[in-house]
Amino acid sequence: MKILKERILSDGRCFPGGILKVDNFINHQMDPVLMREMAKELVKRFSSHPINKVITIEASGIAPAIMVGDYLNVPVLFAKKKVPSTMENMLVTEVYSFTKERSYTVCVSGDYLSKEDHVLFIDDFLANGNAAIGILDLVQQAGGTVEGMGFLIEKGFQHGGDELRKRGIHVESLAIIESLDNCTIKIRE
Amino acid sequence: MKILKERILSDGRCFPGGILKVDNFINHQMDPVLMREMAKELVKRFSSHPINKVITIEASGIAPAIMVGDYLNVPVLFAKKKVPSTMENMLVTEVYSFTKERSYTVCVSGDYLSKEDHVLFIDDFLANGNAAIGILDLVQQAGGTVEGMGFLIEKGFQHGGDELRKRGIHVESLAIIESLDNCTIKIRE
Repeated sequence: MKILKERILSDGRCFPGGILKVDNFINHQMDPVLMREMAKELVKRFSSHPINKVITIEASGIAPAIMVGDYLNVPVLFAKKKVPSTMENMLVTEVYSFTKERSYTVCVSGDYLSKEDHVLFIDDFLANGNAAIGILDLVQQAGGTVEGMGFLIEKGFQHGGDELRKRGIHVESLAIIESLDNCTIKIRE
Repeated sequence: MKILKERILSDGRCFPGGILKVDNFINHQMDPVLMREMAKELVKRFSSHPINKVITIEASGIAPAIMVGDYLNVPVLFAKKKVPSTMENMLVTEVYSFTKERSYTVCVSGDYLSKEDHVLFIDDFLANGNAAIGILDLVQQAGGTVEGMGFLIEKGFQHGGDELRKRGIHVESLAIIESLDNCTIKIRE
């Protein structure tokens, strides 16, 4: 997606260790106009799927997810990274974060996920794909179907996207980072 | 706001200890259509203010905040509850949570908050007001101005709203819960 790629090149910043910071327009300060355009594009790319629910993980997935849900007119469920004391009928999975070098728990209430659900997963970043596989696990525990997974930015060099596509999942990323070597952002054409 | 009050009465659930669960339409599963209507109403109520930035706290404030920011066409900043390793120029405050009986850190990057900023704080819940006072502190540290604070649901019986209004802040809540005594939801007319 042209406007996102241009924005990454103008405002994104690269740090040693393959870190891309986009915290002035995506995951700390957010640009709602860009966010809406990205949501619209994701909706277009998944228009052939019978989606009745959007799912994301707190926190930076919530903004694109609510806008996608608004366009599709379907409920948006955000999975939680901490187990809330009052959650009933809980579905749980473990996700290993390479960035943080530890596992964390992701949970949703089974009250809001069922075998009738055709789910679109939306998140800001796709890196090694562990969070996405965790969501796949939660949807499968509920007996539902993952129709697709849409990301704003995919780190192509971390291969989570390859793994998800190999599993037959329809994956769309609005910008794919080819490499961050020598702290230079290279975006796939 | 009528549609929100009706929704709280039909779908909200009350638990001992003054807990109101609205996790099937606000803070776990979200209804984007209701969310958009609530954002629109908040924008209307703050229309006399010169707002150039929306601020919220992760995670459940993000959905209403991004929609408010979209209507106002201004950036939306979400404060983080964990200190990210790569955040520069950080502003930090401590917030005490009565629900969780512990303090937590809330931070934003000073790169995105300055003395030029006229800020609208948006959050899902207003209870004792400690999170709101934390945000006020962060904006004041940056030399900016809080123009107002808008909440979806205010727990009137926990008096955070009284405290904020006493400080001269323009506070708007779309539904004010009068009491949850005997696990019965009473909404202020």
